[in-house]
Amino acid sequence: MNENYTNEMVQFRRQIHKRPEEGWTEFETMNIVVKRLRELGFKVEMGTKAINPKFVMGRDPELVAKAMQRAKEHGVSQEFLDETEGYTGCVGIWETGRPGPVTMFRHDMDCVIVQETDDPKHESNVGHYCSERDGLMHACGHDAHTSVGLGVAHWIVDHKDELCGTIKLLFQPAEEGTRGGLPMSESGLLDDVNYIVCCHIGTNCQLGEIGICRKGFLATAKIDLSFTGKPAHAGSDPEKGRSALLAACNVATTLAGIPRNGQGDTRISIGKLNAGEGRNVVPVHAKMQVEVRGQTEPVNQYMVDYVERITKGIAEAYDVQYTFEKVGAATTLETSDEVSDTLEAIAKDIPFIKRIVPSDGISGSEDCTWLIRKVLSHGGKGGFFIFGCNQHGHHKGDFEIQDEQSLPEAFEMLTRFLQAKNHA
Amino acid sequence: MNENYTNEMVQFRRQIHKRPEEGWTEFETMNIVVKRLRELGFKVEMGTKAINPKFVMGRDPELVAKAMQRAKEHGVSQEFLDETEGYTGCVGIWETGRPGPVTMFRHDMDCVIVQETDDPKHESNVGHYCSERDGLMHACGHDAHTSVGLGVAHWIVDHKDELCGTIKLLFQPAEEGTRGGLPMSESGLLDDVNYIVCCHIGTNCQLGEIGICRKGFLATAKIDLSFTGKPAHAGSDPEKGRSALLAACNVATTLAGIPRNGQGDTRISIGKLNAGEGRNVVPVHAKMQVEVRGQTEPVNQYMVDYVERITKGIAEAYDVQYTFEKVGAATTLETSDEVSDTLEAIAKDIPFIKRIVPSDGISGSEDCTWLIRKVLSHGGKGGFFIFGCNQHGHHKGDFEIQDEQSLPEAFEMLTRFLQAKNHA
Amino acid sequence: MNENYTNEMVQFRRQIHKRPEEGWTEFETMNIVVKRLRELGFKVEMGTKAINPKFVMGRDPELVAKAMQRAKEHGVSQEFLDETEGYTGCVGIWETGRPGPVTMFRHDMDCVIVQETDDPKHESNVGHYCSERDGLMHACGHDAHTSVGLGVAHWIVDHKDELCGTIKLLFQPAEEGTRGGLPMSESGLLDDVNYIVCCHIGTNCQLGEIGICRKGFLATAKIDLSFTGKPAHAGSDPEKGRSALLAACNVATTLAGIPRNGQGDTRISIGKLNAGEGRNVVPVHAKMQVEVRGQTEPVNQYMVDYVERITKGIAEAYDVQYTFEKVGAATTLETSDEVSDTLEAIAKDIPFIKRIVPSDGISGSEDCTWLIRKVLSHGGKGGFFIFGCNQHGHHKGDFEIQDEQSLPEAFEMLTRFLQAKNHA
Amino acid sequence: MNENYTNEMVQFRRQIHKRPEEGWTEFETMNIVVKRLRELGFKVEMGTKAINPKFVMGRDPELVAKAMQRAKEHGVSQEFLDETEGYTGCVGIWETGRPGPVTMFRHDMDCVIVQETDDPKHESNVGHYCSERDGLMHACGHDAHTSVGLGVAHWIVDHKDELCGTIKLLFQPAEEGTRGGLPMSESGLLDDVNYIVCCHIGTNCQLGEIGICRKGFLATAKIDLSFTGKPAHAGSDPEKGRSALLAACNVATTLAGIPRNGQGDTRISIGKLNAGEGRNVVPVHAKMQVEVRGQTEPVNQYMVDYVERITKGIAEAYDVQYTFEKVGAATTLETSDEVSDTLEAIAKDIPFIKRIVPSDGISGSEDCTWLIRKVLSHGGKGGFFIFGCNQHGHHKGDFEIQDEQSLPEAFEMLTRFLQAKNHA
Repeated sequence: MNENYTNEMVQFRRQIHKRPEEGWTEFETMNIVVKRLRELGFKVEMGTKAINPKFVMGRDPELVAKAMQRAKEHGVSQEFLDETEGYTGCVGIWETGRPGPVTMFRHDMDCVIVQETDDPKHESNVGHYCSERDGLMHACGHDAHTSVGLGVAHWIVDHKDELCGTIKLLFQPAEEGTRGGLPMSESGLLDDVNYIVCCHIGTNCQLGEIGICRKGFLATAKIDLSFTGKPAHAGSDPEKGRSALLAACNVATTLAGIPRNGQGDTRISIGKLNAGEGRNVVPVHAKMQVEVRGQTEPVNQYMVDYVERITKGIAEAYDVQYTFEKVGAATTLETSDEVSDTLEAIAKDIPFIKRIVPSDGISGSEDCTWLIRKVLSHGGKGGFFIFGCNQHGHHKGDFEIQDEQSLPEAFEMLTRFLQAKNHA
Repeated sequence: MNENYTNEMVQFRRQIHKRPEEGWTEFETMNIVVKRLRELGFKVEMGTKAINPKFVMGRDPELVAKAMQRAKEHGVSQEFLDETEGYTGCVGIWETGRPGPVTMFRHDMDCVIVQETDDPKHESNVGHYCSERDGLMHACGHDAHTSVGLGVAHWIVDHKDELCGTIKLLFQPAEEGTRGGLPMSESGLLDDVNYIVCCHIGTNCQLGEIGICRKGFLATAKIDLSFTGKPAHAGSDPEKGRSALLAACNVATTLAGIPRNGQGDTRISIGKLNAGEGRNVVPVHAKMQVEVRGQTEPVNQYMVDYVERITKGIAEAYDVQYTFEKVGAATTLETSDEVSDTLEAIAKDIPFIKRIVPSDGISGSEDCTWLIRKVLSHGGKGGFFIFGCNQHGHHKGDFEIQDEQSLPEAFEMLTRFLQAKNHA
Repeated sequence: MNENYTNEMVQFRRQIHKRPEEGWTEFETMNIVVKRLRELGFKVEMGTKAINPKFVMGRDPELVAKAMQRAKEHGVSQEFLDETEGYTGCVGIWETGRPGPVTMFRHDMDCVIVQETDDPKHESNVGHYCSERDGLMHACGHDAHTSVGLGVAHWIVDHKDELCGTIKLLFQPAEEGTRGGLPMSESGLLDDVNYIVCCHIGTNCQLGEIGICRKGFLATAKIDLSFTGKPAHAGSDPEKGRSALLAACNVATTLAGIPRNGQGDTRISIGKLNAGEGRNVVPVHAKMQVEVRGQTEPVNQYMVDYVERITKGIAEAYDVQYTFEKVGAATTLETSDEVSDTLEAIAKDIPFIKRIVPSDGISGSEDCTWLIRKVLSHGGKGGFFIFGCNQHGHHKGDFEIQDEQSLPEAFEMLTRFLQAKNHA
Repeated sequence: MNENYTNEMVQFRRQIHKRPEEGWTEFETMNIVVKRLRELGFKVEMGTKAINPKFVMGRDPELVAKAMQRAKEHGVSQEFLDETEGYTGCVGIWETGRPGPVTMFRHDMDCVIVQETDDPKHESNVGHYCSERDGLMHACGHDAHTSVGLGVAHWIVDHKDELCGTIKLLFQPAEEGTRGGLPMSESGLLDDVNYIVCCHIGTNCQLGEIGICRKGFLATAKIDLSFTGKPAHAGSDPEKGRSALLAACNVATTLAGIPRNGQGDTRISIGKLNAGEGRNVVPVHAKMQVEVRGQTEPVNQYMVDYVERITKGIAEAYDVQYTFEKVGAATTLETSDEVSDTLEAIAKDIPFIKRIVPSDGISGSEDCTWLIRKVLSHGGKGGFFIFGCNQHGHHKGDFEIQDEQSLPEAFEMLTRFLQAKNHA
């Protein structure tokens, strides 16, 4: 392939790597994306045209406000920020003007809350593009995903005369915590899509390997619970208090005991609990982070319903108030054989791809599953692949991706898919 | 005192001792009482005139029906049984025809669920009047209480010309489990009472001792909880079940944690739990016996309210149905100094009473507290005393009372009280 | 096939059906079996030669003693009872005298605790052979299994000149609760077995259907827990008590929360809990019935270990004593293709078998899995099949098996297996 | 009284008020105290001569190290800091040289973790001596206690010729959390004390009022629990994790259910719980703050023992590690009538004391109870009084004490006590 595309993607990727942004705060990243897409001549949909606010989960308005301020201080224009309506996420649209299918690729943009290592041998330290933001890092490779999207955009313009139909490049916020997929799937911008391809770097594939996932991922919901009791001096007036701590503890142990489900695997995680104000005061506040998973969507919903019922009932038992907030959700992966077969055939054809890795039933969760489901729901088709890199574990401070070699893998897969499906 | 009264009381007591009857089933005992009162010329109120059905607790209609059948087989007439309307408990009324106060004494009639010992040295075996009914025994001395009532009745008739005002002898069912006191207190028969005196045999007093209680007893409520879930095969369809067992278990441990109360001592007892049908079936049924106590009536009510709230909330959490039934209740003891002082003075005057035992703050609960409260509520006055016997522990199969010596203690206390307050 | 075999099996089955016996108490049934085997000339191993006492689970010596007494009253000789050493279960051995493989069939003998219906249309009522023992019934078809064993025994003798090798007919006690399989597998009598075939009536197969199971069943353990606390009056001395009830409740809710296992499905059932003596006494005794399952043996062991650890720790927390007793266990089904293929081929050849039903992954548990495992462990081979009947559900009072038609299915499968493997 | 003493005490109090120091970090305060005592000619015992390290509770070495650094930066000499051996707390000793009793007064020095109000009308803002340290404030009046000690020291020197025996002024660290009393009581410096008087400002007394406490305070223990589990991905490997969070939650709800005690009131408070690292990781760490109280020392010990047993057992049940650390303790108040009567007589004699407030059974806890107990243990005598101020609640940011008027109350009580007991 043309080395210019690689160089360009590498450059974008390193620029983005230096300024990692958490879910729903990707204003600097998105500014790069939108600016480039517009330079290239793409029409760009953003704000509430790209994000359906009714389906937004796990977005903290205060954090967003601070992020917009920070972006502004780093040179993002007020005009652009206004255009976002406070929502990160956008879709670049290329109309070839020729009849043909609507094909969409998805690229997520957010980072994870991890401190990048200061090991001088770590690739971003060697290359002088390590994270400038303390405690934040692109340790899941979404910087790669976004850069590939921009590389593909360039290629589309270079090959515009050979293409037909419409091509949509979707740049998603907040994949971590599975928050941004659903509101983009409900934006209306997927309603005419015929083919959607999503991909991820790393996981079970090494450099030179492509994984084709036809099914898998557990459906999941991320839930925040809070409890509010009444304070009282624990020594003199214990009867006047209502302990949010004890209510939360009973909820936690009861959640762990949600019955297994004969219809499919389930998971329940009570990951965090913070409760109480002082040793001798009946605790007023408790906050809990919960996550459920299910082998199927109904099995996951079974878990969600149980969490809500247990929380409500036990809060009443302890006479405390509660809130139940779903702050993230993903469904299971469904794909179309047509797309998966095409991707597998393409992978076999790429000279530097040495191996196709069977990748059904990958554990974990991914919210691009909502995007694919939406396309499937009106008769469109979709697929998912993994492109490899040699790494030491995702979500860790020493995560590496060898960008010069890994980015071309995805670039080839996606541009060849366009050649297969949108060839004029 | 006249030995005839003693002999008569002893005879009644032994007759009753042979046929012990549980709370709400005292048809044979009551038959003896009513027959004797009518013989002596007392007016007798019974059925729903003596028991207010709205306040009845812990009465099992099936058990009552069986008891009526049994009584009939032991010679109680159908006419009498009809008169009871199925409710044990009655009040014998003696109108002297002379102006004077209305004075009431209370005598309870029920036995406890205990097997009487077959030790040949045990007093009822020596005297050949041990319980004929397996697993039931007058092991709390209510046979003594009832007999004293009949002895006093005889004395009243013998001394009718020396008395003024009205005298009411109340014979109460179901003191065990604190069930019969409240519905008698709400019968209307206490509304004109000026003086009420209640008493109990044993507890902290030996033969020759009288205890005067001016305050004490914990308020209490006895509560039956039941839970109904949904069955399912625990191996193949655990998600379809709703475990009444687990709901009950969570209720039990949560009840134990009801916060202490700065306003007074509290108690919570989860005494029994039976749940489940088989090892591999999600349990459908659970039944639990609970008891709470409080140093004051509001503190006890605080416990009752908590039990109900916890049961309701946790049942909802586990998606099971529940029932909450109060099957017994007693309040704290309040008395009048006038009555207590009179009783203390009388006790000091009785030659065979050697010692007055300070008896405030006796632990345990007593439902004559409702009767005294009712009298106090309209300006009447009340008191409580203990008459001693040498015993090996109440509610045990070897409980003894030395009736020839202990019955006269109470007889003297009560007849002298009438001489003090209802002397013509 | 020869109708005589059918008639004989039907007769035995109905005789056994009338006298159902619980696990470890099958003395009358076994008496029939041993008598018949000896009549036919089989060598019979029994007592501790057939049952390894070290591996016995869920056997109540008191229940066994009563059963032996009952059997004696129903004509079983003392000599025979002595021979059993108190252990039901035996192996009939036929040595052909010709070289050839050792082949074993397994037949279980115990009934379930279910009341047989008195519906006059129910087949055993029509045929006048319904259960004579209240609350006990052959509602899982083990009477059929045992009778087929006796039919096959007769056939072996009739065809002794056509057979080679050794044939062992294993009659197992206590399959319900998965108790008898393990101690027979450890008796030594399986150590030389080359082929083992086990079978069950009903489940997913109708009359005229044979199911071949190559894998399936969940590994399971049945566990009895007991807790012993200290009594105290809940009102006056709550601090002196140690509540076995509360300890058991905490154990129950904690068991429900044993973490899911990523290595395979798990199940936990707390099926029964009985605790406490009276409403106002701190409960001294609690008994709990628990069952765990796992998709693999290690996953099941993970559950067992957790149950023990939770029970131990929480008992300590509540300062109560506990016992942990494994009263039943089964492992997962492993089979050999050679045997399964042979069984499938035989089934296809039997004229009155209309359909072969795919039966891998049957849910539930079976302790013949231990027997097959033992044979496989030294290089032998094993298989499992189901022979159909039209029934309304196992373990129900109206379970039926149409013995004239269903018994021949199994008889044909087993005798043809001998013709295939032990043909002289 | 002499206004000079008042002015001096007010000056010291305001100086100390500006530099509040938490328990075990009172290096600046103690520097003032020791410097002044030495100026006046007192012998001063400090370091491990005043604090018995074996009995130290709730002292964080890291916090102490930072505090010593801070004190140094505020002018405290290294020499002095070395002398403390890192332990705050000291005893000033005045030997009169004349035979007579050893009399001790106790003054505590630490502040509370409360932000002082910036209300301009608040007395320390009016007087320009409000706290210079964010989040820390003398909101319990220990600045007053310490200043009174220095005032009394001056008075002693001024009246040295009128005094006999020995006078010891004990300056205690870490009364908050009831941490410093016990290690000072075990220093040896109380072993010869004949009279000890302790006092506190505020609580139930207004300006011009003195309260005499003869008994009261609940015994208490402050306990820190921590749990350490094992991390695992909650989605893929839940069986590999051990949840410190769930263990802590079960401990919390079980602690709440420690049985009531018939021997005396109990209290249990689970005030704080922080657990877990992330939503989808099995929680490794949990920390909990617990407090128990008992109406008597054995009843309190009953609670402590239960907390330890429950923690240990449940940690084992969940297979997590735990630590149990007692970080504070106080016992119940016992006093001598001789001292209390003397104090009451003195109070009645002070012209500006208008009222003696009955103050038995004050709720809350105080660790001077250890000091008094120690003196009583060898036949010495002790007492406790309260001196009033008009305040808006202790431990609140607007706590005020009207130092010109309140400090003389305590000064008079203590110096008059010396005149009564140590008059030459």
